[in-house]
Amino acid sequence: MRDTPYLAVDVQLLEANLSTMAEHCRRLGMALRPHAKTHKSVEMARRQLSHGAVGLTVATVAEAEIFADAGFDDLFIAYPIWAEGPRADRLRALAGRVRLRVGVDSIEGARMLAHAAARGEHPAPIFVAVEVDSGHHRTGVAPDQAGTVAVAATEFGLAVDGVFTFPGHSYAPDARGVAANDEAEALAIARDSLLGLGLDCLVVSGGSTPSADAAQGRATGGVLTELRPGVYPFFDAQQWELGTVAPERIALTAVATVVSVRGARVVVDLGNKVLGADRAAYASGFGRLPGTPSARVVALSEHHATIEFEGADLAPALGTRVRIAPNHVCAAINLADELVVERDATEFTVWPVNARGANT
Amino acid sequence: MRDTPYLAVDVQLLEANLSTMAEHCRRLGMALRPHAKTHKSVEMARRQLSHGAVGLTVATVAEAEIFADAGFDDLFIAYPIWAEGPRADRLRALAGRVRLRVGVDSIEGARMLAHAAARGEHPAPIFVAVEVDSGHHRTGVAPDQAGTVAVAATEFGLAVDGVFTFPGHSYAPDARGVAANDEAEALAIARDSLLGLGLDCLVVSGGSTPSADAAQGRATGGVLTELRPGVYPFFDAQQWELGTVAPERIALTAVATVVSVRGARVVVDLGNKVLGADRAAYASGFGRLPGTPSARVVALSEHHATIEFEGADLAPALGTRVRIAPNHVCAAINLADELVVERDATEFTVWPVNARGANT
Repeated sequence: MRDTPYLAVDVQLLEANLSTMAEHCRRLGMALRPHAKTHKSVEMARRQLSHGAVGLTVATVAEAEIFADAGFDDLFIAYPIWAEGPRADRLRALAGRVRLRVGVDSIEGARMLAHAAARGEHPAPIFVAVEVDSGHHRTGVAPDQAGTVAVAATEFGLAVDGVFTFPGHSYAPDARGVAANDEAEALAIARDSLLGLGLDCLVVSGGSTPSADAAQGRATGGVLTELRPGVYPFFDAQQWELGTVAPERIALTAVATVVSVRGARVVVDLGNKVLGADRAAYASGFGRLPGTPSARVVALSEHHATIEFEGADLAPALGTRVRIAPNHVCAAINLADELVVERDATEFTVWPVNARGANT
Repeated sequence: MRDTPYLAVDVQLLEANLSTMAEHCRRLGMALRPHAKTHKSVEMARRQLSHGAVGLTVATVAEAEIFADAGFDDLFIAYPIWAEGPRADRLRALAGRVRLRVGVDSIEGARMLAHAAARGEHPAPIFVAVEVDSGHHRTGVAPDQAGTVAVAATEFGLAVDGVFTFPGHSYAPDARGVAANDEAEALAIARDSLLGLGLDCLVVSGGSTPSADAAQGRATGGVLTELRPGVYPFFDAQQWELGTVAPERIALTAVATVVSVRGARVVVDLGNKVLGADRAAYASGFGRLPGTPSARVVALSEHHATIEFEGADLAPALGTRVRIAPNHVCAAINLADELVVERDATEFTVWPVNARGANT
């Protein structure tokens, strides 16, 4: 018996989710480059590659270093890294031992990357992809400006792989199809802006878990050559409430114990230091119980989750164990040092969260 | 030059904040038992004790174990622990080496604690305090029921220290004074319900950082004997926006680099994996810049914070470093492995976040 709270992974559901996404990408003619920021786990990444992933996506240089140390040799830091100070040296060292692609969304950022790649006694090739904004309005240039950045990067001596976007506006009710369309349009314009300036554009990379189903790859006449979903191995309450997945497929839950009961409301011994505090406008609460869909997590503090059941007769007693799917699995895993892996509801191993907190 | 992102502590502001709260508690005749869940740091706890704190408050058995290992010998787990399984043994081991007080808010919970204290070859005394609900409506019994729980605990063989509450409803605009009044009323009723049943009630413990200023201790005719604020060493954007503190006193900020600029909006290289995702209804954004109060953190994802400045001419250039106060400092620190300590804006040491992730 393990003390609560902890994060439990159902390995059979996990394997099914890994297999389904890999098959989806194969069928549509897209390379699968899953985002490792979700799981931050070497064992998870190995499983993704064994299902056919071509490499990993990461968010930070520190994540790239950890996966490189574990033997992964094809990494994409899908982020407009500002390559200054120690980070410049770390990037060059990385590029010397793995096939490293880095995001750029400005000419100045490309210039810094090129300096990082070239300086010192051991220059190393850094490949880049130009980030474009497909509607999420976070980072990324306007799609028709991708060629300009790519030309500058080439002149600085960087090798340009192609273009990428993150259709993050897929994280809203009924937005999955629209976001996938926006993504395809933006990437087509971006690709054409490179081709029009005489550059190659071998990589056209997109993807999020909600929009993955609506994405179109080369095998179906689409523009995408590569997909970068993150959340799909586990899914979470957000994906359930967005309609991306049925609750039966959610492979990660936080296990908690009921410590206080007041009628139909109980408090369990975990809070936002386990689940994370993410709560989108469309969320029904601060997490959701796959085993009791009618229950609502109505309040969350650091070590308390208040769950309201439909009636006092349905509320679990003191000491009962309850399983809650986090709203956002990436945030929950980044709070944990390990994942407790279960098969047939029995613990059989523990996977470390190798890249937890690797933010630099 | 340290790669961003990281959490920076201004040690001079920190010391001033520690001193101010310690003096406040002395003046009002309250013991100061700061909540270590905020900082999770042995060095921070030592400084709190050197300013006169009588012991520490913690939220979990795991936090208690870490501070006990570091030599702290008077700990209050201000949480209605369900003492079952390995946790029961861990509690008994703790009680054998420190003066351990634990929260209870049910007769069943008290019975489990008593079993934990008594079983095995080395029984150890566990002191308890009965938690009452003073308006936050999370855990805690009704104030007039505190005596009933205390009598049961005594009959089970536990030693009752007194009563406690957390006036968490102080975390709302203009609620600090009301919450402090509610706290005092609830604790007075709870104390009297113990006294009326023939029990002592030496400890009457309350406190939160927002309500601390309005609390009344024995020296001013108030009911409180003990205060348990957590956030006050650092403060954060929430406390600023609640009016608890001026931005000039905020002692912890997250340091980030501008990686993308679009007019008056810039994106910096940290997100909710550094700041946490807490955002109360009254918050102006996902954090706040003490150096630029007019700026707003309008969006936050895992590794991106989008900051809107009043005009494009005021927006910092690519590569500029920016300092953001997290909305909730407890969440931010629990994401970090270390705090970078600065004096006169120069780094001089690093403190580990010893109890990061200690949730069990």
